[in-house]
Amino acid sequence: MYQTLQEECYEANMQLPKLGLVLFTFGNVSAVDRDRGVFAIKPSGVPYEQLQARDIIIVDYDAKVVAGSLRPSSDTKTHALLYKTWPGIGGIVHTHSTYAVAWAQAGLDIPIFGTTHADHTHQDIPCAPALTDEMIQGDYEHETGHQIFNCFGEKGLTYGEMEMVLLQNHGPFTWGKTAEKAVYNSAVLEELARMAYLTLQINPDTHRIKDTLRMKHYERKHGTNAYYGQGC
Amino acid sequence: MYQTLQEECYEANMQLPKLGLVLFTFGNVSAVDRDRGVFAIKPSGVPYEQLQARDIIIVDYDAKVVAGSLRPSSDTKTHALLYKTWPGIGGIVHTHSTYAVAWAQAGLDIPIFGTTHADHTHQDIPCAPALTDEMIQGDYEHETGHQIFNCFGEKGLTYGEMEMVLLQNHGPFTWGKTAEKAVYNSAVLEELARMAYLTLQINPDTHRIKDTLRMKHYERKHGTNAYYGQGC
Amino acid sequence: MYQTLQEECYEANMQLPKLGLVLFTFGNVSAVDRDRGVFAIKPSGVPYEQLQARDIIIVDYDAKVVAGSLRPSSDTKTHALLYKTWPGIGGIVHTHSTYAVAWAQAGLDIPIFGTTHADHTHQDIPCAPALTDEMIQGDYEHETGHQIFNCFGEKGLTYGEMEMVLLQNHGPFTWGKTAEKAVYNSAVLEELARMAYLTLQINPDTHRIKDTLRMKHYERKHGTNAYYGQGC
Amino acid sequence: MYQTLQEECYEANMQLPKLGLVLFTFGNVSAVDRDRGVFAIKPSGVPYEQLQARDIIIVDYDAKVVAGSLRPSSDTKTHALLYKTWPGIGGIVHTHSTYAVAWAQAGLDIPIFGTTHADHTHQDIPCAPALTDEMIQGDYEHETGHQIFNCFGEKGLTYGEMEMVLLQNHGPFTWGKTAEKAVYNSAVLEELARMAYLTLQINPDTHRIKDTLRMKHYERKHGTNAYYGQGC
Repeated sequence: MYQTLQEECYEANMQLPKLGLVLFTFGNVSAVDRDRGVFAIKPSGVPYEQLQARDIIIVDYDAKVVAGSLRPSSDTKTHALLYKTWPGIGGIVHTHSTYAVAWAQAGLDIPIFGTTHADHTHQDIPCAPALTDEMIQGDYEHETGHQIFNCFGEKGLTYGEMEMVLLQNHGPFTWGKTAEKAVYNSAVLEELARMAYLTLQINPDTHRIKDTLRMKHYERKHGTNAYYGQGC
Repeated sequence: MYQTLQEECYEANMQLPKLGLVLFTFGNVSAVDRDRGVFAIKPSGVPYEQLQARDIIIVDYDAKVVAGSLRPSSDTKTHALLYKTWPGIGGIVHTHSTYAVAWAQAGLDIPIFGTTHADHTHQDIPCAPALTDEMIQGDYEHETGHQIFNCFGEKGLTYGEMEMVLLQNHGPFTWGKTAEKAVYNSAVLEELARMAYLTLQINPDTHRIKDTLRMKHYERKHGTNAYYGQGC
Repeated sequence: MYQTLQEECYEANMQLPKLGLVLFTFGNVSAVDRDRGVFAIKPSGVPYEQLQARDIIIVDYDAKVVAGSLRPSSDTKTHALLYKTWPGIGGIVHTHSTYAVAWAQAGLDIPIFGTTHADHTHQDIPCAPALTDEMIQGDYEHETGHQIFNCFGEKGLTYGEMEMVLLQNHGPFTWGKTAEKAVYNSAVLEELARMAYLTLQINPDTHRIKDTLRMKHYERKHGTNAYYGQGC
Repeated sequence: MYQTLQEECYEANMQLPKLGLVLFTFGNVSAVDRDRGVFAIKPSGVPYEQLQARDIIIVDYDAKVVAGSLRPSSDTKTHALLYKTWPGIGGIVHTHSTYAVAWAQAGLDIPIFGTTHADHTHQDIPCAPALTDEMIQGDYEHETGHQIFNCFGEKGLTYGEMEMVLLQNHGPFTWGKTAEKAVYNSAVLEELARMAYLTLQINPDTHRIKDTLRMKHYERKHGTNAYYGQGC
């Protein structure tokens, strides 16, 4: 009944180890079916080499299991709240990829230093502050979603222009129009995190990319007159 | 007679090169059989590509060879003392994995900066001081075990909650309920060491993860109400 | 009609992921046919695993498409101007390889610290300043070529002796007598960037290689009495 | 006539790319036949993927070609002088491996920080100063050998206890009783260089390993009562 959605979610999950973004089970991908109001997500703690498409769990936007016999990812409530609140996203990824985690642990936004970054988003990649004690001791994974919204609200970011975020002392979440695009964004984030790290090691006084160059690259790929790619 | 134990030990050893944790012969894994009071360990200096299950040596808790024609790992006495003293462990791993060794050489505990760390243990990963001259010139590998106990005693750590340690100027030992889990812990330690390294390069003033978040992540995976994984 | 040129360009493009120089579609290679006055270039935004030789686009030195149904790389005008201006080059590569980008983002020339560098060129690898706002808002990719010429003019470099450049806040371009050689240069640049990075981390006061050693290594490979290689 | 020697040399050369120690042709291995007074060495500038055992060149201790139609490595005279002067070595390796080059470019000895290092040698790995202008402009590759001897003489090192050296602004040479052991030493050196680099990044004030621990590890592997390995 949910086989296509399960397979999409499975394929996207299996990209994580191929792209070097996860060690053991440190990550999960979900894919949504907007028509049915459910999403598919990786079961908790199942190694990628054992994972099968039929193991993928189906849950609704309140994180209630609709189909599947395994326990869904422990981060399911965060995924659920993001799907519920942001109607335009089709997939979500959470990883503990090394360089993104390092920035998250350092508690810093990733500054926009170059066109590799500007090709994907025109702002620093935000690091949402650690949740308050109340949020952590309450409905933690649900509140994690709220903390992302808090961060985006304060910085005036939209989920369409910024498809990635760091949670302080934790790690990254990314999303996109499809689960495949969300995985793509996870790999891009890891590379941007690595490049920014190296840049500051070489020159701690590096300035951000100038505005004209920043917007030129963003617009040539994402603007109304975009000419990158095949226009499809 | 010890074929099952040898094969468990062999399989665990062969994970080390696959996980990128050893160069040449710089590591060893042992697996214990509590019923018979013996453990299986890699022979000393045998390359992984030549290793066979039947080469695995069987020794008792005093490090005396019970079965096998090759010389056991030069670190056998350390393994023996850990098995003798800590009844709950089923496997032990020693490697010279790069980032863990770097922290050991720097002589510093690995600070707990994030949830990747807290998912596995709720304390800094301790670096036991180098052995005294007397210990080194005495029964060195046996004393290495005692130095681990000294360190755990001073810091009030238990082997169940902290399944990894660094020896100053040397490298890591890890353990677990099974040899497979001990290998898993070696890979986790290497990744935590790498993440902590990068974190301090980005922000030398990084604070440890806050207590609520630290314990939340530890408890959701290891506490009485744990809900990570499939509960088995 | 352009099948040989397309295949040469295709083969060179496929080397980029093999050499670890590109993530997803972050790079492109072109190969020129001097007799016909056209060059072949990768189509924009097509993943390497889907790329086929017949997808390669043929364009002239004014970046007008001569053959092919897909849109050529968004960087085509930069390639075109380099081919038009520098008659001796046969191939061009643009990547966002990690360490080269880090130096470009830091806005610094890569200092010539050793013989690995001097085996390939006898000068620092230049970082051309970011384009002016007018250049960016004008014919950006065409002006990128001019900015490379500006940089080479100011530093007195020739394209024969220096086959690589960084664009500030962007990344590297390399070229060579063939597309294959240009790809080789991209990999060499990435390694030189990494070595120089590590060198300065170890010793921030490192001096450049002394002149005699610098020119000895350059001349033994590229001078009139060169004796490196098989002389063909 | 030299087929066995050529094959030994070929096999050892092919280990370099497998161990990640060379990019393109940046390295060479030689293997000596002491009975005949000749050694086999890689031809200059031949890519590893094209190299065949029959391409390997045979030269004498004065670097004169005895057999083979290709030009030998441009570093042949350095190999020749080392074989001529040090009767106990059976193989030599030169690479431009990344971390070893970084230390060479930084112009610093690699400090002995841990047991991984002490398992292989009990001293810092020396960095020989750059050759004088006279040496560089004279018989450069021959003088490179002399510079290694100068360095070992000044530091009181023997080639049996220290099987590796860095040349300032250049890179590493290693040797051993066989070509295979020399390759092993190249990989060990690269790992020690990386570990020492990371150690100083974590703690710039790191002290060298204490003497007792240093000699304990060296002796347990190399001393008269060594008990590491299988004693063969």
